[in-house]
Amino acid sequence: MPQQNRSRQNEKVRIAILDAAFSLVREVGYDKLTIEGIAKRAGAGKQTLYRWWSSKALILLEALVEHVKDELVFADTGNIRDDLLAQMLRVEKLLTSKDTGCLFIGLLVEAQFNQDVANAMNVQIYQPTYRAATERLAIAQRHGELQPGLDPVMMVELLYAPIYYRLIVPCTKLTAADIPKFLDMILAGIRL
Amino acid sequence: MPQQNRSRQNEKVRIAILDAAFSLVREVGYDKLTIEGIAKRAGAGKQTLYRWWSSKALILLEALVEHVKDELVFADTGNIRDDLLAQMLRVEKLLTSKDTGCLFIGLLVEAQFNQDVANAMNVQIYQPTYRAATERLAIAQRHGELQPGLDPVMMVELLYAPIYYRLIVPCTKLTAADIPKFLDMILAGIRL
Repeated sequence: MPQQNRSRQNEKVRIAILDAAFSLVREVGYDKLTIEGIAKRAGAGKQTLYRWWSSKALILLEALVEHVKDELVFADTGNIRDDLLAQMLRVEKLLTSKDTGCLFIGLLVEAQFNQDVANAMNVQIYQPTYRAATERLAIAQRHGELQPGLDPVMMVELLYAPIYYRLIVPCTKLTAADIPKFLDMILAGIRL
Repeated sequence: MPQQNRSRQNEKVRIAILDAAFSLVREVGYDKLTIEGIAKRAGAGKQTLYRWWSSKALILLEALVEHVKDELVFADTGNIRDDLLAQMLRVEKLLTSKDTGCLFIGLLVEAQFNQDVANAMNVQIYQPTYRAATERLAIAQRHGELQPGLDPVMMVELLYAPIYYRLIVPCTKLTAADIPKFLDMILAGIRL
């Protein structure tokens, strides 16, 4: 097979594996999912999976990224509140939807004890979304919408912090209705 | 034995078990800790532990609460920034210290999948600290330090959110130096 066809074939297998992982984790749960189960569902050889990924968590992370990558863009409509609200509501939806919520929490938990997973989440999820968010905030600072002296990274952390708080603290509930309330409390402090 | 002596004896055994759990979890880690191990270290019968607690997590939660309960007070010096900063720095220290940090993260992780642990954390940690914090904020609202229209519970959540964010998001670090920066960004928005 020419190199190009082989790459195209590999990409098809890769997507089949990620799709299988994504659908299977919802059915059986994060803990009970196995690499064998994913291989069987994808119709792929177990060895292929072990060659491409060193753990179940890394397959699931790639499946999650594949599924959400188009949702993590950061629009620039010229109004920072509108853009932040739209993006925070998208993240809230991802974190509470049946498809992606439990998967994300499973990876977040794994990252507490597994530095490989922490690093992979950082590279595949946090670095690109932070880049997009801090660029958008820096534009708002240049346009006189936000205080120019504040650190864009700490502003992004503060904006997303209540979402993570509600996701992780026992007996609290992340709801779309509270997102604009948190956003406006924060914006009141960081606006110019 | 008269009832009172029996109670006093029980309390001594309870404290011995909690002390044993607290020291042992630091040595062997949350995952490898067993009820048998705690019983042995405490010189208590395994059956006593099973009679008083239904899981390892609930013993560890009570050990944590016993250890930190005096740190969770909320002072009222008359200056809301001073009082919030002091309290947030105390929480930051608890969450990053060798003794209590890993134990707290272990319980937080367990609470994601175990509703009994979530409820117990809520009753033993969050409800009392929220009561103290919202009372302090309500006083500051009445004294004209904070905006009277804001929900004290959501203010508490927002204030502690960056601490949880840095605790949980991969490849970020919770530091005492950043606490006043987050506090001042938030206070700028919620002050009257």
